[in-house]
Amino acid sequence: MTPADRHRRVYLTDLPLEDAFARWTAALRARGLLRPLEGEVVDAADAYGRVTAEPVAAVRSVPHYHAAAMDGIAVQAADTFGASETTPVRLHPDQFRPVNTGDPLPDGTDAVIMIEDVHEAGAEAEIIASVVPWQHVRLAGEDVVATELLLPSNHRIEPADVGALLAAGVQRVRVRRRPTVLFVPTGSEIVPAAAELRPGEIPEFNTAMLAAEVRAWGGAVVRHPVVPDDVGRLVAALREAGPCDLVVTMAGASAGSHDYTAEVFSRLGEVLVHGVAIRPGKPVVLGVVGETAAIGLPGYPVSAALTFDLFARPVFHAMLGIAPPERERVRATVVRKIHSTAGVDEFVRVTVARVGDRIVAAPLARGAGLVTSLVRSHGWLVIPRSSEGVEAGAVADVELRGRATEIDSRVMVVGSHDVALDVLADFLRRADPRASLASAHVGSLGGLLALRRGEAHIAGVHLLDDQTGEYNVSYVRRYLPDRAVMLVTLAERDQGLLVAPGNPKGITGVADLARPDVRFVNRQRGAGTRVLLDYELRRGNVAAEQIHGYDREVYTHMAVAIAVATKAADVGLGILAAARALGLAFIPVARERFDLAIPKEHVESPLVQQVLAVLENAEFRQAVAALGGYDLSRTGTRVRIVPGGSAPP
Amino acid sequence: MTPADRHRRVYLTDLPLEDAFARWTAALRARGLLRPLEGEVVDAADAYGRVTAEPVAAVRSVPHYHAAAMDGIAVQAADTFGASETTPVRLHPDQFRPVNTGDPLPDGTDAVIMIEDVHEAGAEAEIIASVVPWQHVRLAGEDVVATELLLPSNHRIEPADVGALLAAGVQRVRVRRRPTVLFVPTGSEIVPAAAELRPGEIPEFNTAMLAAEVRAWGGAVVRHPVVPDDVGRLVAALREAGPCDLVVTMAGASAGSHDYTAEVFSRLGEVLVHGVAIRPGKPVVLGVVGETAAIGLPGYPVSAALTFDLFARPVFHAMLGIAPPERERVRATVVRKIHSTAGVDEFVRVTVARVGDRIVAAPLARGAGLVTSLVRSHGWLVIPRSSEGVEAGAVADVELRGRATEIDSRVMVVGSHDVALDVLADFLRRADPRASLASAHVGSLGGLLALRRGEAHIAGVHLLDDQTGEYNVSYVRRYLPDRAVMLVTLAERDQGLLVAPGNPKGITGVADLARPDVRFVNRQRGAGTRVLLDYELRRGNVAAEQIHGYDREVYTHMAVAIAVATKAADVGLGILAAARALGLAFIPVARERFDLAIPKEHVESPLVQQVLAVLENAEFRQAVAALGGYDLSRTGTRVRIVPGGSAPP
Repeated sequence: MTPADRHRRVYLTDLPLEDAFARWTAALRARGLLRPLEGEVVDAADAYGRVTAEPVAAVRSVPHYHAAAMDGIAVQAADTFGASETTPVRLHPDQFRPVNTGDPLPDGTDAVIMIEDVHEAGAEAEIIASVVPWQHVRLAGEDVVATELLLPSNHRIEPADVGALLAAGVQRVRVRRRPTVLFVPTGSEIVPAAAELRPGEIPEFNTAMLAAEVRAWGGAVVRHPVVPDDVGRLVAALREAGPCDLVVTMAGASAGSHDYTAEVFSRLGEVLVHGVAIRPGKPVVLGVVGETAAIGLPGYPVSAALTFDLFARPVFHAMLGIAPPERERVRATVVRKIHSTAGVDEFVRVTVARVGDRIVAAPLARGAGLVTSLVRSHGWLVIPRSSEGVEAGAVADVELRGRATEIDSRVMVVGSHDVALDVLADFLRRADPRASLASAHVGSLGGLLALRRGEAHIAGVHLLDDQTGEYNVSYVRRYLPDRAVMLVTLAERDQGLLVAPGNPKGITGVADLARPDVRFVNRQRGAGTRVLLDYELRRGNVAAEQIHGYDREVYTHMAVAIAVATKAADVGLGILAAARALGLAFIPVARERFDLAIPKEHVESPLVQQVLAVLENAEFRQAVAALGGYDLSRTGTRVRIVPGGSAPP
Repeated sequence: MTPADRHRRVYLTDLPLEDAFARWTAALRARGLLRPLEGEVVDAADAYGRVTAEPVAAVRSVPHYHAAAMDGIAVQAADTFGASETTPVRLHPDQFRPVNTGDPLPDGTDAVIMIEDVHEAGAEAEIIASVVPWQHVRLAGEDVVATELLLPSNHRIEPADVGALLAAGVQRVRVRRRPTVLFVPTGSEIVPAAAELRPGEIPEFNTAMLAAEVRAWGGAVVRHPVVPDDVGRLVAALREAGPCDLVVTMAGASAGSHDYTAEVFSRLGEVLVHGVAIRPGKPVVLGVVGETAAIGLPGYPVSAALTFDLFARPVFHAMLGIAPPERERVRATVVRKIHSTAGVDEFVRVTVARVGDRIVAAPLARGAGLVTSLVRSHGWLVIPRSSEGVEAGAVADVELRGRATEIDSRVMVVGSHDVALDVLADFLRRADPRASLASAHVGSLGGLLALRRGEAHIAGVHLLDDQTGEYNVSYVRRYLPDRAVMLVTLAERDQGLLVAPGNPKGITGVADLARPDVRFVNRQRGAGTRVLLDYELRRGNVAAEQIHGYDREVYTHMAVAIAVATKAADVGLGILAAARALGLAFIPVARERFDLAIPKEHVESPLVQQVLAVLENAEFRQAVAALGGYDLSRTGTRVRIVPGGSAPP
């Protein structure tokens, strides 16, 4: 790297978002790469979703002829003048012609008399009222006259437009060519998603994800095979790419990958931006390759999706001559403090729900590699670079991924995770296609705190009171002291020790967790399973300090299970369903009650009532029972807890 | 028709909308025709937009191996215990392995030490701090664990979902089969839209319009050729139709057409509803044909589009197992009284714009044959059957066709029509793809009244004051006495008499309009052209009563032109551009000034400023000049009118 290069790198690094976008698009505009594409001619019948490349005018008038608007006789109005009840007029057969609605008006006639107003008199017709010219006639061009404007330029063609085009005789229409996006995934460790993976190999799925976006926008996609981290091969790949409107490379996971991208853009064109002050997505590269706009996306899927949206989406739509569809926004109360770094625009995925009279937004885990967090998020909350975060209780703008109307039919379940909740989500949606169940797995106590913050409608809890041996009730009283809450049993379930198939370490109970040759994986503080573990340790007189891995915390049963399955640990405490899912052996420890805790004000909402109705569905119960380790005999049982009062028996 | 038939017809006729829908869908449900379709397996990479037919679980964990999260060395944490600055620990070469970010954790190691914390000591590595197990390790399954739920049933697959499916090893996914809709247009007068039309022939375009809707919904379409009004041939067409999920017939224009539909449905299945108390769309037929849901749509395009939306859309989506996307609604002030008939749910197409601090809705012409009114409308306003209409100033719900955000970038121009306004609309959109210009042609005085009612931002006016010979100013003072208004000249233009090519009647000026052999077509009261005509008639001492057709009113220059072009009249007054458009001869009468009248409060809005900027665009001026009959030398000239004051020179 020469000093000049180094200077340029510094200059190009970590530009604020708006500056980066402006710098790139100014360069594209200067090169003529940011204007609407030329047009191509397509059949009007197939033009739905395309964008007009020029104004479209009617070729013929609608209707294209003067039409009778009634059943009756067509006449010359002048022949009827003077007709009245006292002085009827008789029309000779050559003065009128019978017509039906829709018939063309015969030559030499200019009005229609309704059949009810005509008296037959032999071959003649007698009328007793005169008519004005064009009475009961639908004039040609009533709807549109040939040459009149139907659609302006840069208009996305809707179904009704297709109808109007064909009605007005427009058979072919000039529309913008579909912008073509070339995707070039790079990285020596990247393999096709379809492949059997070895450790260290990363499946390539970003291209498929972003290709779906491009198709939804109305574009065409060319997918290049994966190119290893090799400047020469990447240069060759981009050179042979042929004509396209936007080149998108996707970097691999390695730290040096973005530098390859920048180097290749430099060789074949120009790097305009390398690094933007946003998170995730910081390493994005913006430039030009040959005579084509080019973006180098980071490899992590969340970074790739975000930067593609921020930079490619507006440029793509400019090539169509239209604005990107605006996303809906809502003002939402942020339920938990979100930290951010000053100087960086931070894009936080959030869940969004209406809880009571507020719309609430809760941040999801922020790792850029978490593709499922894109699936689970309902929108983006942006913390501007001028800020170090958002306080709990603050109101902020959220840009929604979907529709604002969906917010009102989303039930938010926060707390402990149970596989039965996934089954519940599925059955809820089957019962009402509008309804959805969003869940966040933060442990049982986390769920009660979420209820307290007004973040959720329902908390999933299984918290053992080691004084009474009773589940959940005392915790609700302690954490929600002023609230009336209904506890509804989801299921009773078996907790136990998850160990490798064949139980190679010969573990028989919690006492074995203290053995020096046993590595344990624990659940996080506040998880019901952690509470159960600590209870069992006390009962068995096992000290936590004796356990290797007691401090190693994961957040779900399935995370415990995979830690054991992948030999990251020898044993963990979890539910039978998790052991079954990954083929682990299971040593039962306790049967516990998993309840849904629902504040009284939410119990009667139609949405929560739909959830409770699922619990009564026999098919649902069968599906949960089939998971193994569940007892559904008490499912749906309700316990009311009132402030200061005691629970009914 | 037997008495029993007649009884049934009465029973089936004009059901309220909800009853009709309930009756039809109950019958479909009873026959098993209203449940989600079976699934088919597709590649996950191509699954965007499809709907899951079953819950989808992760096939592999993401990541699928324990990965180094830093560049450094992989170790056994136990080997590092006790290391500190004062008691460094030296690791033998077989106790550690160098790793880069993303590398799989080597067997026998359980933690990573950052390269910065490692001191080389020959072949050994010296560390000065112990590490805990799994430090700097990205555990397998951090994102999702194999077997965990990715997507529930009945979920429309988004781009991010495609990424998650492929990341989690889901190569193929079971999705709902696309519902197939068979369209069967009927009517002996109906011909393919592509054909050259003879008088009396109606082009078939409803199928293309509704097929676009079905494709947008994610369905497949089969289009049957037009079937004449013949029960036997329609029966044959529906019999040979083969398997589909919804049969849609479209009636012709004739009154008896719907009866054919009903008769054929009866023969092949059942008629459940014949006639619904809605307007437009009353004659719709709902039933079953064979073992397929069936709808008989009315032939008028607006009726067809509305009834397809009301009845087919929810049933179609039920077959996918999802709810139809909810449309956005706004509360809008209705600017003009809308009459309706009690007992009928009336669906009125409206334009919608934000004018000042209100969202306003203005009704469009209601003819069911006006396909362009679908193009021009922004939404539907429903007047319930309990009501006889909506008063001006009332606030009502409007269901939008597009997005609510579009309302804020729509400039509403109401008043006189000029072809230059269409050019203006096109240039505005090219300048800002978000902006749109909606216009309603109600004549110059109508435009000033629209400004008074707060219905529009701009009125197009060309009103001659016959006292002063001046244009527009005195009218603004009279009709908007309390408002400050800017008049901005769009163009000066030639008005004249439009006559057939070659001027067969030898018309030379307005004096000829009184000739008994000359048939005139007039503009409506309040049109600037009508004002000009009356001025010229007074100047020429021609009495209106002498003119054949003085009472025959049409609403635009193009309507005048087509009346002359189709010999419905011999002459009319209009602009040169209209004459040129339809190849008519033109006898100049006057040059007049067409102004945009803009209330002061709108002049400074960014949207109106964009409109005014177009007037300064040389390309725009060239495009208007090319229409013929325009003088743009005063285009953009402004006159300020203040209440009580006088216009500046």
